[in-house]
Amino acid sequence: MRQSKLLLNTLREAPSEAEVISHQLMLRGGFIRQLAAGVYNYLPLGRRVLRKVEQIIREEMDRTSAQEILMPAMQPTELWKESGRYSIYGPELIRLHDRHDREFALGPTHEEVVTALVRNEVSSYRKLPVTLYQIQTKFRDERRPRSGLLRGREFLMKDAYSFDTDWSGLDESYRKMYEAYHQIFNRIGLNFRAVEADAGAIGGEGETHEFMALTEIGEDTIVTCNCCDYIANLEKAESRAPGSSDLIVRADTVKEKVYTPNARTIEQLVGFLHVEKQSIVKTMIYLVDGNPVAVLVRGDHEVNEVKVKNYFGAENIEIADDHAISSKLGVPVGFIGPVGLQIPLLVDVNVVNMPAIIVGANEQDFHYVNVQPDKDFTTEHVGDFRNVSQGDSCPRCERGELQFYRGIEIGHVFKLGTKYSEKLGATYLDSSGKELTMIMGCYGIGVSRILSAVVEQSHDEQGIVWPISIAPFHVHLVPISVRDEVQMNLVDQLYQQLSKHGFEVLIDDREERPGVKFKDSDLIGIPIRIVIGKDAPQGLVEFVERRAGQKTTVEADQVLQLCLERVN
Amino acid sequence: MRQSKLLLNTLREAPSEAEVISHQLMLRGGFIRQLAAGVYNYLPLGRRVLRKVEQIIREEMDRTSAQEILMPAMQPTELWKESGRYSIYGPELIRLHDRHDREFALGPTHEEVVTALVRNEVSSYRKLPVTLYQIQTKFRDERRPRSGLLRGREFLMKDAYSFDTDWSGLDESYRKMYEAYHQIFNRIGLNFRAVEADAGAIGGEGETHEFMALTEIGEDTIVTCNCCDYIANLEKAESRAPGSSDLIVRADTVKEKVYTPNARTIEQLVGFLHVEKQSIVKTMIYLVDGNPVAVLVRGDHEVNEVKVKNYFGAENIEIADDHAISSKLGVPVGFIGPVGLQIPLLVDVNVVNMPAIIVGANEQDFHYVNVQPDKDFTTEHVGDFRNVSQGDSCPRCERGELQFYRGIEIGHVFKLGTKYSEKLGATYLDSSGKELTMIMGCYGIGVSRILSAVVEQSHDEQGIVWPISIAPFHVHLVPISVRDEVQMNLVDQLYQQLSKHGFEVLIDDREERPGVKFKDSDLIGIPIRIVIGKDAPQGLVEFVERRAGQKTTVEADQVLQLCLERVN
Repeated sequence: MRQSKLLLNTLREAPSEAEVISHQLMLRGGFIRQLAAGVYNYLPLGRRVLRKVEQIIREEMDRTSAQEILMPAMQPTELWKESGRYSIYGPELIRLHDRHDREFALGPTHEEVVTALVRNEVSSYRKLPVTLYQIQTKFRDERRPRSGLLRGREFLMKDAYSFDTDWSGLDESYRKMYEAYHQIFNRIGLNFRAVEADAGAIGGEGETHEFMALTEIGEDTIVTCNCCDYIANLEKAESRAPGSSDLIVRADTVKEKVYTPNARTIEQLVGFLHVEKQSIVKTMIYLVDGNPVAVLVRGDHEVNEVKVKNYFGAENIEIADDHAISSKLGVPVGFIGPVGLQIPLLVDVNVVNMPAIIVGANEQDFHYVNVQPDKDFTTEHVGDFRNVSQGDSCPRCERGELQFYRGIEIGHVFKLGTKYSEKLGATYLDSSGKELTMIMGCYGIGVSRILSAVVEQSHDEQGIVWPISIAPFHVHLVPISVRDEVQMNLVDQLYQQLSKHGFEVLIDDREERPGVKFKDSDLIGIPIRIVIGKDAPQGLVEFVERRAGQKTTVEADQVLQLCLERVN
Repeated sequence: MRQSKLLLNTLREAPSEAEVISHQLMLRGGFIRQLAAGVYNYLPLGRRVLRKVEQIIREEMDRTSAQEILMPAMQPTELWKESGRYSIYGPELIRLHDRHDREFALGPTHEEVVTALVRNEVSSYRKLPVTLYQIQTKFRDERRPRSGLLRGREFLMKDAYSFDTDWSGLDESYRKMYEAYHQIFNRIGLNFRAVEADAGAIGGEGETHEFMALTEIGEDTIVTCNCCDYIANLEKAESRAPGSSDLIVRADTVKEKVYTPNARTIEQLVGFLHVEKQSIVKTMIYLVDGNPVAVLVRGDHEVNEVKVKNYFGAENIEIADDHAISSKLGVPVGFIGPVGLQIPLLVDVNVVNMPAIIVGANEQDFHYVNVQPDKDFTTEHVGDFRNVSQGDSCPRCERGELQFYRGIEIGHVFKLGTKYSEKLGATYLDSSGKELTMIMGCYGIGVSRILSAVVEQSHDEQGIVWPISIAPFHVHLVPISVRDEVQMNLVDQLYQQLSKHGFEVLIDDREERPGVKFKDSDLIGIPIRIVIGKDAPQGLVEFVERRAGQKTTVEADQVLQLCLERVN
């Protein structure tokens, strides 16, 4: 491929909306272009990388005997009503009406469609187990699409679904996918961890792991123990119980209302009352499946929404906004407290054994001090409702402390059990003719998002450093002077030879200064660069590896051999 | 692949909604399943065929140096307003609103997006020409989705767009695509013709060809000459002028109103008045870009909507429904005529020289007879407004007559010119620094629809006969008895050997009667079948070619060689 004709336009500066480095570099390197918020064009370089990722995934899926299918983006919402997700999926589900006013959703995921398909196609245990997968465009109307391909509204996913006759079959299907995911991410060259996770809105009973690419940025926090192999994401992570949850009743203290003008935040209150954060309790209001709920955590802790949601077995949770707080509870934002509040109170276990706490008084500019749990408010609902903190005790081993890392979720495997098969009636007849419900698993990989994860992990000051397995081209031939016939003959010769051996080669045949060419070459990150310059008459070229950056002068005859060594 | 675990469920009967044979066979053979009207799941066999078609297209596109990209389905409607197609595309364009109430269209085609992309990425003549393509899912809300994959609402397309500095460049880009299309359809094994066509709503100035697969069914009529190489689709086809368009004025006849109760159709009128169809003139009412227009053609002729639309240079035409006729014109349906009608009258050239014609009287149960063009109604707009008929004179050669064939449109190449680049401002600087508008072409292939076209052309009473280039598997190994160890060993041996040489092999390892296996095998249409039966101990197997149907007993050792001969 000749670079002069390639639709490739490198940018010196990334557009200001690109905050994370992968987004910046993929824009600057001409891999992607935004069409609308969270909606991207893949230019030729980006499309090539994407196809290689797709191909690796496909090969490893096929190796597990999963069967490729293709399901539509347009899904009749009847199916979503059958599964019960229609009402709970919220505004992320893009809905539309066809010309006959029938409603469709644009699939953010395909549990409903695949379950309905298998329910019709498979009736006997003889056809099970079966795992189906597709690589297909998904739609999710994110509230805040951001970070380029990391959180888009239209994106490419590999989703797979397994159907088994029993739970041990599911264990086996799950294990196969779990192992295939390791293969895939290893081939792509990612530094990743499989992390215990929460099943979320999609999920059902049982096990689930997220595959996390470790990066400096990333929307997810990964919690590990510094002693044992405990690893979980923050949503799911627990710490060892912080001591006793017994109430410490101090009969001598009585709650007292104090004037705290404008002290709405923990920080303001700390400053005003000259107390530690740890003696204050935050009262956070959430809407859990639409109903208001108060969650009490210590001032230095954060509420874990997933734990709250799971406590109720709810499908949906969101923080109540100021309007909801004042309209539903009639209390002033910033001064909310548990005393007298007529909604369910979830009390984090760390709050229960605090002897005298400070909380909002449900009155503008007032707090209570010396409040006692159980005496001044109900402790009917006590549990673990907070995010663990760095340094908390490991829940698994005796000695370890928890540490935090950032990560990008690149894959997810779930044991769904019968969550969908039951609702949609996906049953089979066993060998004795009895009708039983299929046991399902589902397995996703964020195909387009992998590009971001790779670039986050694999770049330097000059640009992207693609692993050779997914690089847009393997070799970049850069002649110093395109008007020099000797150089260009050598370029042609190398091109022919390398192409014949399956290498994908880009020739920078532009009439540009060498500095410009090298800068672009570094930016787009092709793993091997061959510079053909003044030593061409002697048959000598420069061999540069993008990652290491070292340059070696080699004979042109050696180039093929050197390249072959780099791919094996 | 073992058939016992393949998601493949053959049906004895096709569902009644499947009218055309390709739809029936793909349903019966377990290739596709309908999710909603015009929206399909591709099961493993269907997905395999689809991928092979994609691969052939990709290879031939790459060979022309077209560059693969991937554009989104979600397109901001602002772009459609810029191009002017927002208002004219009609209800086929699926529109939706995101959570911030911004409107998007689901791309039925990508002229707007690609033109906006290239306008931003290419500014110099040095980067031109460039041709970009994608293989991507399209959405079109057809009024009547039907015939399986032939007319769907969500379907796979290859669309390509070329950008040139001048028209001769476009000629060259167009020629490359035209030739690549021949390569593609030849490799797929289709019987097809490139046909002169009308540019339709998408189109601009200049040349356009449709690639038509010749079939017995098909929504398109192809018109050819029985003498010369004239070939066009019916929309576009012309015939030699039917003689003079001079008026024949007969002073002695005067129009007369006659009572024709309930004679609403041509047939009823013929029966009632005892006249020939040819002496009646039909007055058809259309809405052209929303405005009512009457078109007059002879009773035995059909209006050609494309010619009417082109006469006005309009973007949209539809036949007026009864409601529109009575509300806009105040005349009774079935009795419309040109006399006194206060809307534009388009008079087909064949009507002009009819000396005395019968038309509706715009009054319930009345017609006029002895009406004379020009005298009784205006002949301001005379032209070719009808479909040619079989037997009409060829417009190109002197002697030929026109013949009709049916066809399925599988590809389309257009010279767009500056239609989109002008509206969207896709310009470049030429070598002297002057700003000029890019000249565009666009080139589509209906990827999923090709499956239907192939099956229409390539099937027999027993089922599908896939060409080997796109068959879901190359070889079907069918052991007569899966409990016979000798047979199964031979199956394994053949499987290993064939797979090692790149053949895709399906083993029918089901415990079914041979008759059932053969029936299924014929239905799904794998090109080569090897039956391993009672002669297995002697190393003999049956070699069956699906297309020819002939069976030969061969030594197992010969099988690889025979298969290799079939692919080369």
